[in-house]
Amino acid sequence: MLEAVRQQVLEANLELVRRGLVIYTWGNVSAYDKDSGYVVIKPSGIEYEQLRAEDMVVLDLEGHVIEGHYKPSSDTPTHLVLYQHFPEIGAVVHTHSTWAAIFAQAGRDIPALGTTHADYFYGSVPCTRELTADEIRGEYEKNTGAVIAETFASRGISSCDVPAALVREHGPFTWGRDPQEAVYHAVVLEQVAKMAYHTMTLQQIGAEEKPMQLELLDKHYLRKHGANAYYGQ
Amino acid sequence: MLEAVRQQVLEANLELVRRGLVIYTWGNVSAYDKDSGYVVIKPSGIEYEQLRAEDMVVLDLEGHVIEGHYKPSSDTPTHLVLYQHFPEIGAVVHTHSTWAAIFAQAGRDIPALGTTHADYFYGSVPCTRELTADEIRGEYEKNTGAVIAETFASRGISSCDVPAALVREHGPFTWGRDPQEAVYHAVVLEQVAKMAYHTMTLQQIGAEEKPMQLELLDKHYLRKHGANAYYGQ
Amino acid sequence: MLEAVRQQVLEANLELVRRGLVIYTWGNVSAYDKDSGYVVIKPSGIEYEQLRAEDMVVLDLEGHVIEGHYKPSSDTPTHLVLYQHFPEIGAVVHTHSTWAAIFAQAGRDIPALGTTHADYFYGSVPCTRELTADEIRGEYEKNTGAVIAETFASRGISSCDVPAALVREHGPFTWGRDPQEAVYHAVVLEQVAKMAYHTMTLQQIGAEEKPMQLELLDKHYLRKHGANAYYGQ
Amino acid sequence: MLEAVRQQVLEANLELVRRGLVIYTWGNVSAYDKDSGYVVIKPSGIEYEQLRAEDMVVLDLEGHVIEGHYKPSSDTPTHLVLYQHFPEIGAVVHTHSTWAAIFAQAGRDIPALGTTHADYFYGSVPCTRELTADEIRGEYEKNTGAVIAETFASRGISSCDVPAALVREHGPFTWGRDPQEAVYHAVVLEQVAKMAYHTMTLQQIGAEEKPMQLELLDKHYLRKHGANAYYGQ
Repeated sequence: MLEAVRQQVLEANLELVRRGLVIYTWGNVSAYDKDSGYVVIKPSGIEYEQLRAEDMVVLDLEGHVIEGHYKPSSDTPTHLVLYQHFPEIGAVVHTHSTWAAIFAQAGRDIPALGTTHADYFYGSVPCTRELTADEIRGEYEKNTGAVIAETFASRGISSCDVPAALVREHGPFTWGRDPQEAVYHAVVLEQVAKMAYHTMTLQQIGAEEKPMQLELLDKHYLRKHGANAYYGQ
Repeated sequence: MLEAVRQQVLEANLELVRRGLVIYTWGNVSAYDKDSGYVVIKPSGIEYEQLRAEDMVVLDLEGHVIEGHYKPSSDTPTHLVLYQHFPEIGAVVHTHSTWAAIFAQAGRDIPALGTTHADYFYGSVPCTRELTADEIRGEYEKNTGAVIAETFASRGISSCDVPAALVREHGPFTWGRDPQEAVYHAVVLEQVAKMAYHTMTLQQIGAEEKPMQLELLDKHYLRKHGANAYYGQ
Repeated sequence: MLEAVRQQVLEANLELVRRGLVIYTWGNVSAYDKDSGYVVIKPSGIEYEQLRAEDMVVLDLEGHVIEGHYKPSSDTPTHLVLYQHFPEIGAVVHTHSTWAAIFAQAGRDIPALGTTHADYFYGSVPCTRELTADEIRGEYEKNTGAVIAETFASRGISSCDVPAALVREHGPFTWGRDPQEAVYHAVVLEQVAKMAYHTMTLQQIGAEEKPMQLELLDKHYLRKHGANAYYGQ
Repeated sequence: MLEAVRQQVLEANLELVRRGLVIYTWGNVSAYDKDSGYVVIKPSGIEYEQLRAEDMVVLDLEGHVIEGHYKPSSDTPTHLVLYQHFPEIGAVVHTHSTWAAIFAQAGRDIPALGTTHADYFYGSVPCTRELTADEIRGEYEKNTGAVIAETFASRGISSCDVPAALVREHGPFTWGRDPQEAVYHAVVLEQVAKMAYHTMTLQQIGAEEKPMQLELLDKHYLRKHGANAYYGQ
């Protein structure tokens, strides 16, 4: 059942490792198949090297396992809530990728600071509020999805315009039309988070940098360029 | 037509990926062939793994396609303006490489802070002003080239002495005599941007670092060196 | 003797290199075999490329060599003290991995700042006090283990809940049920240290980041998305 | 002539690339052969991929070429001065490795902040003063070596105890008994510079980091560990 989708979900999980977003098993990808109404997701706790397409778990949107010999990822309820609230999306990715998680840990949006961000995210990537103690002790994974949906609704952000969210003190979720696009968004998110972090740090530094010695600038440039060049390492 | 140039442009595009300056298709290289007066540039939106020399697009300096079965890169008008204003250059590279883009996002020049910079750039690598709302809404890609040319003209910088520019809140452009040299400059720019960022940060830190415990320094150095050495991990 | 354990210890040492936690020979792994009461540890100063399972050294908990044609790692007394104080552990890893060592050099705990940390460490990873001059000049490697044990005892931390410690101005030790788990904890520690460092830095930056130009955000998002998209790199 | 030494010098140059200390041709290694009194050094401006042992240049200590079909590295006079002032050394390495060069650009010593540093450098790695305008315009490369020797003499540092120096606004030089050891010291220097930079930054951050939500710490730790664990990604 859903062989092509299983294969896409498997490939997307492996791509997370190849792209350096995931160490060990710290990530998961799912896809929503509009025709059947089923979700395909990575099984829980299997090492990536051993994952096969047939190990992917098929569920309905309420979380009932339709097919699968392993348990689905423990984060499955988060994925299901996102499919329920964002009906246009076809895949969800969760990672603890370094720079996106740093913003999540600091409880901050990733602000749009340049065109690399603007090419993919139409404004800040929002960071959710803290979950309440009750939300954590209760259906935690489901509430993790709910607080993402709440953040987008309360801030009037479209899940089409900004295909990513940070869960506070946790990490990023991204989505897309299919697993490949959701992973692509996870890669871009990590890169724009890294660039935003350092841009914000650089904005803190006044314009008082001490320039280099002018004679040394002359010497090094002119020994390699122009009529009197002589240098080779 | 221009087979050798197409091959150089293809190679230069792939080299950007190998050098870690480009993820996915986020970069483009063009070359200007002085004999024919034509420009060869990467086609738009083709994945790097599938690029072949014959896919490169040949245009004249006004942007008319002379040969090519794909659309040229959407950044083509920027490249063309640079060839028009900087007649001595033979190739242009555009990337969103991390550290150069961080300076662009912060709207700052990359200052010359050491000989690594001075070996290739004869002074600061300038960052342009913001484009006006009209310039953005109008011929945006062309105006991106124009603001680079304006920056060099108004600040009296020679495009030979400083073969790179940062477009504010966007990213770097570099150039050279041929695609190989333009890519070389893109690699150097990324490295000097990374070094400048951290040098500027280090300049902020006063000289009050807490040195290590002297007994521990003695112990570790002397257990590995000299007459009484005994240590091996 | 203890062939399977030797093989595990060898594999774990090599895994430290593959995971980027160790350069040259800067690390060591040992295992405690509960059945025999013996410890198996890396020999001293042998290059990793040449290490074979038979080169591992077997000792008793007092440090007497039971089997081995090389000297055991000079850090052996530290490992032995940890096995004596933390009877539930089956393996110890020592590295100078970059980010964990940075916290050790700064003399600071790695605080729990997010779920990546919380998944493996139930609270801060503690940093020890400085050793006294006498402790350094005396049985230094043994005292290094003792100060870890003292830190856990005095702060009421269970070695099960927090399988890692930082030795001040030195570096991290981690442990686990077996060499594989102890290495896993060393990898996680390095990652959470890196994330904590940058989270703490980001917490220092006020919310005053200068957002990007709105027209540029519009231009870049809308030239790639929606009805009027035209862009391809 | 000196075939074994040529081979060692070649290998050491290639090792700089493999260790990530050098991009393109930005580095050079030489060796001093005590028996013949000759120096073997990398030729100038040849790409590393094409370097062969027979391309190494043999010179005497005054810089006269004894054997070689290429020009010696332009940095040769710096190497020669170091052999003249530090008679116990058998090899010299020059790189622009990122983190060491950052300290050089900031004009700062690399302070000893932990045992990784203390294992190899018995105190701070010194940064030289600026060269005077006359020293730069005159025999620049020779004066670069002289200012290193002057720094060690005036600060009473032994070149045995601290086998590395930073030339201000330029980059690091390291040395050792043979090319392999000199490269080893270059690798260690880069690592301790990286760790010192971040330690100094971390020392700037007060102890006011905002810890994570306790309920979230509990939830994540306890869903993976202990009797009620249920989590798998």
